[in-house]
Amino acid sequence: MRSIVFENGKSLSAEGPKPRPGLGEALVRVLLAGVCNTDLELLQGYYGFSGVAGHEFVGLVEECPDAPEWVGRRVSADINCGCGGCPLCLAGDPRHCPTRTVLGIVVRPGCFAEYLTVPARNLLAVPEGLPEDCAVFAEPLAAALEPGRQVNLSGRRVLVLGDGKLGILTALGLAPDCPDLTLAGRHEAKLALARGARTALLPAGTPPARAREILGLFDVVIEATGREDGLDTALALVRPEGIVVAKTTSRNPSRLDLARLVVDEITLMGSRCGDQSLALERLAGGLDPRPLIEARFSFEEHEQALAAASRPGAMKVLLTP
Amino acid sequence: MRSIVFENGKSLSAEGPKPRPGLGEALVRVLLAGVCNTDLELLQGYYGFSGVAGHEFVGLVEECPDAPEWVGRRVSADINCGCGGCPLCLAGDPRHCPTRTVLGIVVRPGCFAEYLTVPARNLLAVPEGLPEDCAVFAEPLAAALEPGRQVNLSGRRVLVLGDGKLGILTALGLAPDCPDLTLAGRHEAKLALARGARTALLPAGTPPARAREILGLFDVVIEATGREDGLDTALALVRPEGIVVAKTTSRNPSRLDLARLVVDEITLMGSRCGDQSLALERLAGGLDPRPLIEARFSFEEHEQALAAASRPGAMKVLLTP
Repeated sequence: MRSIVFENGKSLSAEGPKPRPGLGEALVRVLLAGVCNTDLELLQGYYGFSGVAGHEFVGLVEECPDAPEWVGRRVSADINCGCGGCPLCLAGDPRHCPTRTVLGIVVRPGCFAEYLTVPARNLLAVPEGLPEDCAVFAEPLAAALEPGRQVNLSGRRVLVLGDGKLGILTALGLAPDCPDLTLAGRHEAKLALARGARTALLPAGTPPARAREILGLFDVVIEATGREDGLDTALALVRPEGIVVAKTTSRNPSRLDLARLVVDEITLMGSRCGDQSLALERLAGGLDPRPLIEARFSFEEHEQALAAASRPGAMKVLLTP
Repeated sequence: MRSIVFENGKSLSAEGPKPRPGLGEALVRVLLAGVCNTDLELLQGYYGFSGVAGHEFVGLVEECPDAPEWVGRRVSADINCGCGGCPLCLAGDPRHCPTRTVLGIVVRPGCFAEYLTVPARNLLAVPEGLPEDCAVFAEPLAAALEPGRQVNLSGRRVLVLGDGKLGILTALGLAPDCPDLTLAGRHEAKLALARGARTALLPAGTPPARAREILGLFDVVIEATGREDGLDTALALVRPEGIVVAKTTSRNPSRLDLARLVVDEITLMGSRCGDQSLALERLAGGLDPRPLIEARFSFEEHEQALAAASRPGAMKVLLTP
């Protein structure tokens, strides 16, 4: 089978044998995959990863010896594969299992391949009739919805900071349950993709104090800028005793104004992956992420695809085997 | 009256007229005051403060034209004086009023004086029979108890990090409601002051990863080291999806490993002042903070007192008018 392998800062086409499902695993044929910023960071050596990357996909189960009812079904999959035996896994939280593998991110080969194997317990059925270019957003939309699971947003004044893919998905995903939600970003054209959400333009270089004058203070700020200075702006825009949900990871330690956090008793909450069943439900219910699709490439065009996804301000790039 | 004035990085004895209580205010004669690390930072120019510092005290109400029932009573006082009219004050949260004054910290003269004025609504009665050298701890003990109000600690594995005054008060205050609480610090003699709490010695310079090997992971870590590297150690000791309560302020921006916070979905919660009525209740109920008293000085000896309080590792220094 063909796959895209990341090695020493480059992506390479590879040809190899189809993987064999291990105990409790399914063999899934990839129908469509999405490129995430994490993939671009892996390509640069983040997490010391080398191998088949990719963790956003929709596929078709071809083999599943231990749970044959999955065969022939279209699926997405939870990307975190817990050990199944540690206290966290036993408590139903494989996402934080200390020895977890993660599809295309930690140890386990990902979905930039014709086939991948996935534990059957991680499979999620794609609702009938849901187009594949919607279903492929299950993983990033789940991450976008996660702040709504971590924090009660109802009745709160909420700001989503950042009009990249994650910010727009967050606004699209949370706005229906959160009428007082604003998406703030630097690009009018990108803000326009968040249909149904209130938007606010914050031109590049707006100092945090000026952003506060323009926008006022919020009960909850979801920081999804992907930039190192995003946290400073988020802290400037949250009210005393408010909550900042941090979505941005960065390889370098961030600067944090701890005095502001302590004096104003602000809560800063890390937020990573989410519940993909919920995301699939929302997609089936009509949330349409397709305006975020920027380009589609075949596996053969992987270099162009990754270059397109790396362009500053790029939206979602899809890959077809 | 005599007072201690902070000016240009120095403390000075001053002599001046007794203050007059304004509308709704009480005139309080100071019986005993405590020196807090914040006072030492104010002395160095933190918050641009100059004037009469001090915010930990027990006093006697001498005048209170608008609420004469207070006259003759021993009191402590909530140090945050809200405007009374803003949405936060109206919602019962003057602690975060944007135009608040704070006794001896922001604008308002503090308690390193024979007399101070305080809004009557800020007064708190000191329970009968409670010694003054216990009651003077109402403000710092309230701050120490605050994490128990912000986070449900029952049934949680809790670590208090730092065996300074605040760490020890936190352990003393929270241990009765939190059987699985450990106080970790660098000094055996100081740890011994936290009677009733489990303690663990972490010698100076212990790297965060080593601290984790020694102590394991906790559901909640209360960071009260007062050191810039305390946050790194706290993050190393909290479990995925756990909570770090930050008590340490610092004038310089802190380094924060945001990737760890996001990937492990950790919550970092700022925590400042607390509820002094609760603290007075605990003190009246038998919590004895007096082992923390290191020295007592008169107002005349203010230079020695502040020098003693500034010594690394100093415990509580008290001042008598």
